[in-house]
Amino acid sequence: MAKTALIVSAHSADFVWRCGGAIAAHAAKGYEVTVVCLSYGERGESAKLWKQAGMTLDKVKAGRRVEAENAAKALDVHDIQFFDLGDYPLEMTREAKDRLVDVMRAVQPAFIMTHSKYDPYNTDHMYVSQWTLECRAIGQAWGHNPGQKILGAPQVYLFEPHQTEQMDWKPDVFLDITDVWDKKWAAIQAMEGQEHLWHYYKNVAENRANHFTRNSGGQSGGRPAKYAEGFQSIYPRTVDEL
Amino acid sequence: MAKTALIVSAHSADFVWRCGGAIAAHAAKGYEVTVVCLSYGERGESAKLWKQAGMTLDKVKAGRRVEAENAAKALDVHDIQFFDLGDYPLEMTREAKDRLVDVMRAVQPAFIMTHSKYDPYNTDHMYVSQWTLECRAIGQAWGHNPGQKILGAPQVYLFEPHQTEQMDWKPDVFLDITDVWDKKWAAIQAMEGQEHLWHYYKNVAENRANHFTRNSGGQSGGRPAKYAEGFQSIYPRTVDEL
Amino acid sequence: MAKTALIVSAHSADFVWRCGGAIAAHAAKGYEVTVVCLSYGERGESAKLWKQAGMTLDKVKAGRRVEAENAAKALDVHDIQFFDLGDYPLEMTREAKDRLVDVMRAVQPAFIMTHSKYDPYNTDHMYVSQWTLECRAIGQAWGHNPGQKILGAPQVYLFEPHQTEQMDWKPDVFLDITDVWDKKWAAIQAMEGQEHLWHYYKNVAENRANHFTRNSGGQSGGRPAKYAEGFQSIYPRTVDEL
Amino acid sequence: MAKTALIVSAHSADFVWRCGGAIAAHAAKGYEVTVVCLSYGERGESAKLWKQAGMTLDKVKAGRRVEAENAAKALDVHDIQFFDLGDYPLEMTREAKDRLVDVMRAVQPAFIMTHSKYDPYNTDHMYVSQWTLECRAIGQAWGHNPGQKILGAPQVYLFEPHQTEQMDWKPDVFLDITDVWDKKWAAIQAMEGQEHLWHYYKNVAENRANHFTRNSGGQSGGRPAKYAEGFQSIYPRTVDEL
Amino acid sequence: MAKTALIVSAHSADFVWRCGGAIAAHAAKGYEVTVVCLSYGERGESAKLWKQAGMTLDKVKAGRRVEAENAAKALDVHDIQFFDLGDYPLEMTREAKDRLVDVMRAVQPAFIMTHSKYDPYNTDHMYVSQWTLECRAIGQAWGHNPGQKILGAPQVYLFEPHQTEQMDWKPDVFLDITDVWDKKWAAIQAMEGQEHLWHYYKNVAENRANHFTRNSGGQSGGRPAKYAEGFQSIYPRTVDEL
Amino acid sequence: MAKTALIVSAHSADFVWRCGGAIAAHAAKGYEVTVVCLSYGERGESAKLWKQAGMTLDKVKAGRRVEAENAAKALDVHDIQFFDLGDYPLEMTREAKDRLVDVMRAVQPAFIMTHSKYDPYNTDHMYVSQWTLECRAIGQAWGHNPGQKILGAPQVYLFEPHQTEQMDWKPDVFLDITDVWDKKWAAIQAMEGQEHLWHYYKNVAENRANHFTRNSGGQSGGRPAKYAEGFQSIYPRTVDEL
Repeated sequence: MAKTALIVSAHSADFVWRCGGAIAAHAAKGYEVTVVCLSYGERGESAKLWKQAGMTLDKVKAGRRVEAENAAKALDVHDIQFFDLGDYPLEMTREAKDRLVDVMRAVQPAFIMTHSKYDPYNTDHMYVSQWTLECRAIGQAWGHNPGQKILGAPQVYLFEPHQTEQMDWKPDVFLDITDVWDKKWAAIQAMEGQEHLWHYYKNVAENRANHFTRNSGGQSGGRPAKYAEGFQSIYPRTVDEL
Repeated sequence: MAKTALIVSAHSADFVWRCGGAIAAHAAKGYEVTVVCLSYGERGESAKLWKQAGMTLDKVKAGRRVEAENAAKALDVHDIQFFDLGDYPLEMTREAKDRLVDVMRAVQPAFIMTHSKYDPYNTDHMYVSQWTLECRAIGQAWGHNPGQKILGAPQVYLFEPHQTEQMDWKPDVFLDITDVWDKKWAAIQAMEGQEHLWHYYKNVAENRANHFTRNSGGQSGGRPAKYAEGFQSIYPRTVDEL
Repeated sequence: MAKTALIVSAHSADFVWRCGGAIAAHAAKGYEVTVVCLSYGERGESAKLWKQAGMTLDKVKAGRRVEAENAAKALDVHDIQFFDLGDYPLEMTREAKDRLVDVMRAVQPAFIMTHSKYDPYNTDHMYVSQWTLECRAIGQAWGHNPGQKILGAPQVYLFEPHQTEQMDWKPDVFLDITDVWDKKWAAIQAMEGQEHLWHYYKNVAENRANHFTRNSGGQSGGRPAKYAEGFQSIYPRTVDEL
Repeated sequence: MAKTALIVSAHSADFVWRCGGAIAAHAAKGYEVTVVCLSYGERGESAKLWKQAGMTLDKVKAGRRVEAENAAKALDVHDIQFFDLGDYPLEMTREAKDRLVDVMRAVQPAFIMTHSKYDPYNTDHMYVSQWTLECRAIGQAWGHNPGQKILGAPQVYLFEPHQTEQMDWKPDVFLDITDVWDKKWAAIQAMEGQEHLWHYYKNVAENRANHFTRNSGGQSGGRPAKYAEGFQSIYPRTVDEL
Repeated sequence: MAKTALIVSAHSADFVWRCGGAIAAHAAKGYEVTVVCLSYGERGESAKLWKQAGMTLDKVKAGRRVEAENAAKALDVHDIQFFDLGDYPLEMTREAKDRLVDVMRAVQPAFIMTHSKYDPYNTDHMYVSQWTLECRAIGQAWGHNPGQKILGAPQVYLFEPHQTEQMDWKPDVFLDITDVWDKKWAAIQAMEGQEHLWHYYKNVAENRANHFTRNSGGQSGGRPAKYAEGFQSIYPRTVDEL
Repeated sequence: MAKTALIVSAHSADFVWRCGGAIAAHAAKGYEVTVVCLSYGERGESAKLWKQAGMTLDKVKAGRRVEAENAAKALDVHDIQFFDLGDYPLEMTREAKDRLVDVMRAVQPAFIMTHSKYDPYNTDHMYVSQWTLECRAIGQAWGHNPGQKILGAPQVYLFEPHQTEQMDWKPDVFLDITDVWDKKWAAIQAMEGQEHLWHYYKNVAENRANHFTRNSGGQSGGRPAKYAEGFQSIYPRTVDEL
């Protein structure tokens, strides 16, 4: 049976910058990765489009969706779903929570990825982080839609926010994405409306690779990586060997 | 080449309660585990002995050493070294630091274990935690005893303190020690002077096993463990797959 | 006039594991203890029941209620109320808040107990913790139902969550429950659907007793306790003698 | 063009105690300061009024409004708006959020002030703090009411809560309000229903002035201030000279 | 047998501002309170004296000693000891630690008071806080000066630092010192060299009394206090009734 | 009189990566910037040199000194002093502290810069951070070398460590260094032994510029910067206008 992973992205571009490498790397290892975009980021993360004359909400959403689909393709995403909940503020109804739980149970992910716990710049992000934990708990409830296969206890990784230190985000694992960098770079370039961030996230990937190397041995045998991503785990790991 | 691990224990019994299972489990996997006891805990952790008539510091140290050696044997420790630095307070001279660095470089451990960062009940513990990080940094310095093989970047795990919540200690990994529990239990019983703690640490191992099970899937397929130990990592991990 | 206390329990079993001893101990001192179960934990904490054929939500709720009533009886609870708000997710409407405020004002508790502030495993718990503080503030408002006796400033104790370190929970007071352990043990055994937790919480009570002893004097005259519970206070205490 | 500032006050008196000096000081420098009172504090912060016979909610609100308007006058507030959302609990609908965003965009403040992030005594305060960040994010969204002038990135200052240490509030800037103390004192005295707090907040202002002096040079040339206020910044500053 | 308490004060005036009320209040209840001044604060806290012509270190120390003795008298201190270790920096040798341990064991205090854990303005304070915990641990060691009566497990209270929020200090207990305020005020006035702080600490005492009242019931039956002091506990309490 | 600043650098290259831009930018504004290198980083930060045949400690120190002097020149440093205290571990004697205090008093800096409070990779860094606060306190003591001009209350900025999130470092101010980037880049290139870090710190400067822009207005009028540095303040600021 295929291994699977689930990404919960507040806005349609978040999965690209923050865990595009993890998606492609796991796809390359045979994982089927599902991405849920709760909104298109149509109001709050589409400044470039809104500066064009005659822009409408529907046009922005359509444009953002195409970009996200193109990025997903570049990253070998297995399935991308758009919940279209609106953004700024993103409001998650009980119905939307149930829908996300359905996805969690259908996917049965080995791990889930979502936003940081705190974000004073972007409250959508921090709410989504909390709702993801809430939906994970609902997914584990035997009494929720009895008969459905319930959710296990997948790790939840918080992916890298913008301005990490302001978000109290501290990575505890670095993933080597060197081999799939070309895919992440292609996905980044699919985000045509946010070209000002392309170079920024290339720098991030390079510097996280430096951290990868440092933590894997530094100048005394550290394994080099050229591109990496960092993640913060919510739950303890369970192992047989440290 | 054998895999290795290094335990830095402030007092001679700490390695038994706090990571005896990890020692035995890794020994069973072929690791050569070295334990450094910086002191015998002769002043501060030998109340039962001191209540005996005619007790002297030397007698206490000798008794504590025998107990520690017996425990080490039970756990299949590869090498146990006693630095005899005194305790309450444990004072680490530059010479003692250099000696610990020598051990680190000789052992080249895959990981190091030591005490929690904070301990208002036992300041020896928290100082040792900091000195271990300091010695690890010295061990990585190319200019320290040039010619010696320098230290890589081994993970440092903080093992479980007494009264975890008071020490700001938060485990991020649980290790299944079910298969080696008999060894840990034998080592615990070798600590004859601290019989009041035997049952306490059995309870800890059982309850950490509950946490192991919860975090590995809970009621939805979690892998059962009967005994476990928890650890807090200092550094991020570097991986190819999450 | 009788002294009183109020327990706000997200699911119908929480009050047993987490503060059953405190309930029985205070009942023995003449306190009238009221327990509010906001839900039955019917969806999320009744796995064993749901694994039975032909189970329905109503049957689970009825079964859970009986268990909770039996436990309450064993603990000499003065009054137990079931709000039946549903669980996973537990949603607290304005009406439910007003109802809880009514209880607070009617009981006029010397102290309130509820869940930890943070719980990534069980978001119901952390929401209930916050709602309890919110209802306490409403209860203190002179303009809420003018004419009712308003609430004073009762301490709020956060009782022990599962996996304490993951919840950022730090106890600042330990309560000796040795004399009422038999009652707590009977109440625990009333939780027939969660037999896997009986032994776990016995271990907790024993180890908290070790902490009680340590903090009351340790090996130098500490008062022994065989069973104890720990709590975290939200507010400062006000005293005439330290 | 006039410089502007915006104060978001949960209850109608908060702006007086917590940032009355900042308002008057900036007004004196030519700022147009707008105050939004989300509620009158009619239920939860008007105990003195409710103790009078025949009191009604409308009378309390009318009385609180007059007091707030008088205080605003004393402080040279440019505009004061009452959203009348109710208090204890203060509930912020989507409509109310949109209204606050409208104010933010209309005012285009150089900085915003609001409550501390945490307040276990007064949950209205902590919710308002979070909603203010949320509204700021909405105000920055190009797709929210396209055509409106969008909000920049004004600093958000958290003003001083009651019992600062319990709220995890840590000031990082002290403002000298000596020159406008008379205005703040007049505004404080306009709060006739809360006379028990007058002296308290005079003490606060004096002691914050001591902190101002200490941090500006102490006994080695510190600039003396007689009255000051402290604030905690949410966002980093951007400067050309430190 | 008399109850006892021990205050560990980095500089000779600290015990006056920070816990003078606690000293006098407990003396009034029959406690014998011992104060250890590790230094006179002769270099770092005697600016006013140093501004006088012809001042010498010995003169400052003599002057500071007289002030401290006068204050101690005013507070009914049982015993005041001056370790004369020097200040700015205060350096605590092993010999000085042993001396402090001797005092701890001789006094057998019901509680110890000392400085906050962190103080970036005054590193002497934070070091003394840590050394006090270290000496408490040594005092508990059965092997330290065998034959001496060993120390139990007295609570350590951190008294109020200057600029509390900057020191990460959070009080969890308020003590009513109204009845002994006259004594504290007299002791404060004995500190002739630091007259600029008299009014400051009067304000502190008044405002802490407001907190006392709030936490003991607020506007709904809170017990009024006119003067109070706040303290942060290091260890959990052990109780039979909450 | 010239404005001045003081940088306290554990190893001789730290000032280049971490605050080279701040140095050059303030030099350009007329500040005289003094740099104190407590060690050359000869043992722990000179791996490349040690890999050369025939290397000796003296040669490494000489080489590191030349690099640091060249970098200082490129940055328009006013004065650079080498304390040559040794590194890994860097040990700061009382004599060295007094020497640093002398520099502080001679320079009378408007601000001081040094390392982050915590650094588990490099304990030298965290010790230096604490010693800098300690020396600042000594420098303020009227009784230390009476007659010398005592130190005021300069801000202490913690400059950017490597792997910021692991060091609990959170910047609260960003400085635009675009105009002096050429100087910082030249200084970076003077660090010939650490070429692997050149690109890394260029990325850092670019991404901090993104943060500068975001925090100064973002997509709604933020002031663009091409290169920036971030700093964390220890003390509150004191201002007349926010």
